[in-house]
Amino acid sequence: MKVTVWNENRHEQKNPVVADIYPEGIHGAIASFLRAEGLEVGTATLDEENHGLTDEVLDQTDVLVWWGHLAHDEVADEVVEKVHKRVLQGMGLIILHSGHFSKIFKKLMGTSCDLKWREADDRERLWVVDPSHPIAEGIGQYIELQKEEMYGEHFDIPAPDELVFVSWFEGGEVFRSGCTYRRGNGRIFYFRPGHETYPTYHNKEVQQVISNAVNYVSPVNRDYPTYGNHKPIEKISEK
Amino acid sequence: MKVTVWNENRHEQKNPVVADIYPEGIHGAIASFLRAEGLEVGTATLDEENHGLTDEVLDQTDVLVWWGHLAHDEVADEVVEKVHKRVLQGMGLIILHSGHFSKIFKKLMGTSCDLKWREADDRERLWVVDPSHPIAEGIGQYIELQKEEMYGEHFDIPAPDELVFVSWFEGGEVFRSGCTYRRGNGRIFYFRPGHETYPTYHNKEVQQVISNAVNYVSPVNRDYPTYGNHKPIEKISEK
Amino acid sequence: MKVTVWNENRHEQKNPVVADIYPEGIHGAIASFLRAEGLEVGTATLDEENHGLTDEVLDQTDVLVWWGHLAHDEVADEVVEKVHKRVLQGMGLIILHSGHFSKIFKKLMGTSCDLKWREADDRERLWVVDPSHPIAEGIGQYIELQKEEMYGEHFDIPAPDELVFVSWFEGGEVFRSGCTYRRGNGRIFYFRPGHETYPTYHNKEVQQVISNAVNYVSPVNRDYPTYGNHKPIEKISEK
Amino acid sequence: MKVTVWNENRHEQKNPVVADIYPEGIHGAIASFLRAEGLEVGTATLDEENHGLTDEVLDQTDVLVWWGHLAHDEVADEVVEKVHKRVLQGMGLIILHSGHFSKIFKKLMGTSCDLKWREADDRERLWVVDPSHPIAEGIGQYIELQKEEMYGEHFDIPAPDELVFVSWFEGGEVFRSGCTYRRGNGRIFYFRPGHETYPTYHNKEVQQVISNAVNYVSPVNRDYPTYGNHKPIEKISEK
Repeated sequence: MKVTVWNENRHEQKNPVVADIYPEGIHGAIASFLRAEGLEVGTATLDEENHGLTDEVLDQTDVLVWWGHLAHDEVADEVVEKVHKRVLQGMGLIILHSGHFSKIFKKLMGTSCDLKWREADDRERLWVVDPSHPIAEGIGQYIELQKEEMYGEHFDIPAPDELVFVSWFEGGEVFRSGCTYRRGNGRIFYFRPGHETYPTYHNKEVQQVISNAVNYVSPVNRDYPTYGNHKPIEKISEK
Repeated sequence: MKVTVWNENRHEQKNPVVADIYPEGIHGAIASFLRAEGLEVGTATLDEENHGLTDEVLDQTDVLVWWGHLAHDEVADEVVEKVHKRVLQGMGLIILHSGHFSKIFKKLMGTSCDLKWREADDRERLWVVDPSHPIAEGIGQYIELQKEEMYGEHFDIPAPDELVFVSWFEGGEVFRSGCTYRRGNGRIFYFRPGHETYPTYHNKEVQQVISNAVNYVSPVNRDYPTYGNHKPIEKISEK
Repeated sequence: MKVTVWNENRHEQKNPVVADIYPEGIHGAIASFLRAEGLEVGTATLDEENHGLTDEVLDQTDVLVWWGHLAHDEVADEVVEKVHKRVLQGMGLIILHSGHFSKIFKKLMGTSCDLKWREADDRERLWVVDPSHPIAEGIGQYIELQKEEMYGEHFDIPAPDELVFVSWFEGGEVFRSGCTYRRGNGRIFYFRPGHETYPTYHNKEVQQVISNAVNYVSPVNRDYPTYGNHKPIEKISEK
Repeated sequence: MKVTVWNENRHEQKNPVVADIYPEGIHGAIASFLRAEGLEVGTATLDEENHGLTDEVLDQTDVLVWWGHLAHDEVADEVVEKVHKRVLQGMGLIILHSGHFSKIFKKLMGTSCDLKWREADDRERLWVVDPSHPIAEGIGQYIELQKEEMYGEHFDIPAPDELVFVSWFEGGEVFRSGCTYRRGNGRIFYFRPGHETYPTYHNKEVQQVISNAVNYVSPVNRDYPTYGNHKPIEKISEK
């Protein structure tokens, strides 16, 4: 299995706080713990040619992890189209945190993907609401993060196919924090935490969830469905 | 449309705090605001014969509202069987608060329906997570209750067919507070708030949700499906 | 409640078979039976200015019914954007038959919306798989159409929020024929039947389903959620 | 992983046609192809003591496969309670064909689980409606069975959490043939085919689906949620 971790990688260049937390970039941190699970992991960033997502890279990617925030509009529409096509073909997609406003997530959801937010060091608890779900494997009753950006409902997404986590924030909000979707031959997981000024991707439980999700959304090995004109069944007597 | 409000009606007899909040009983309070909506509403309680749920009452009931807590075990299995049958035939069912542990709810869900709880005057916010849902008509972004019993996840229910409300509690928990289910020809709504020592059913927004829900789960007018041996389609040429 | 029936209205101009079945156009036929239900119904067609969907028309439309086939690409992107925005604001949307490939449906679904098809006078049965659903009110166990175009799985849509009908075709295929979705504040119903060369929209049960669906997807009366920066809860002690 | 295949094993004793198709019993046939996948597989049958489902067997079973038909009523309620408890604890459960009427399936579903049926050598096609699902891995667009018992809608089950297969029957019916459910910590798969007088469990694609399903419903490794009285979050300042 081949994983590609895509990151906007702009905060890391501009903000020493972020650079200090993630010296190899958010993509580097995520790639590192996924490699420690034995996965083959590449990275790609916005300012590379084609944002690092050439046809060759995409064709070989089984699961794409996506982090973006400041520069969603700078992602080329052609690249978004290619990623969209690959998801419908079966590539897994994990959208992290502020990626809720990425072109690719909005295109796959069909909604505004808007939400409430607050940068105020809120304490967060991500409660497991589906204990039978493989994405929650190894996780206790909740994941507690001492400080995070708040995201609050209403989160303008389609009702998730499966709801795995619901967040509590000390400031008074809740949020559907771990959501799976199926689109075409592909599976998608949205996972809320990961504001750039907190060391969230160094948290072992957050890492566990992302590793679990990579496995969960990995492609299923089968032929694609065919579409278009279809012949009627032959009568048994005609065979 | 005929609504029957069923109440255990034991706390009201034993606890002056409850009797003071609900002098006509919880059933009386709920019946009162539903009648004000122009609905035809009857009541039934545990200590009546057949718990007030005779065949005649059940056959004429379009929507049954259920509140119970202390004495779930005293509800006769035969009555539970009849209510279950009526739901599968199309009668709407609204389960309130501690009714999560009623025999009828557990029978319809197939799970333990267990949860976390705390009686500590927690502040609660019920956030609307599905703004398109008729049960949320007339409700703002959330309903705030200054003091309520806390119910927390994991709530051991099947994933709801529709999730309308998610509660936040100041003590650190979240809860899937407004859940719809379809079972047979019938529809069910579970609604969390309503601990007996708080005046929750006097809250106008809580009343609005229950009124909306009565409409939402009301029976659909159609013939029941048939079951059993079924003849094959005749060939057009044979008609 | 104000309904607008939108129709491409091209087959009716080109093909005498279609013109003969629908002398007032498919839109005219649909508007006619909806008006007979007491609804206020307008129509709009592709070749009108703005395709008949001006801001004024859209702002006053509670439910939009959509039929298109040959000329999906001729629908202006700006109009699609406006319809999309109105659905997220709460306008109901009913997509009929070949509208599965319309720009607006694909944008709301996020998938290719592709399918199998055959024009061969297949007999179709639309089985009710959710007898509790208001869209099936008044419908028997299935709707039988003696001749229709076949649509077959895999239908590349997100898993429906609610699946109401599944079609059987004599040539060997099945199809998820009646599907609801919630997007933002709006509700959507996709309904399969209605190939232009068959008198499907003159069928009383098909008419009943569309009438039921107009009611089902009609807007809920409430304030929109707010998005963006959100203040924390004030402590009770601070109030 | 430890799989237990439970079979009523009565048709095999009474009907030479069945004994001829399944000389080792239906349980033997299923156990055989699962063992060929490298799984550790035991069997249990109705007429063994405790129906072969002792506490020891159940405690060690990760996935239970269930086939029953004639003698659902002979399954002891205590055994059903134990299996139910184990599913809520996380044991996977695969219910085959006429197991739709088993006590355990009805208890987990909360509905009648009734359906239409016909024994008339109907040709069946099980269409894959979710190509992204691991249970469909390795399966083409549909599985075709030349002769099977027909099961038709309405199938009185809760809406499945995931719908993987929909069957077409030549006699005019459709059926939701592959359905997943989550209950407590456990996952369930219902799979339609397998009437005892046809060699359905010798079909390679049917075997593939059952193998895939065993993996899909296998338990997730995590602590159970706790229930009951729950302490409030400590203030950060108090820690």
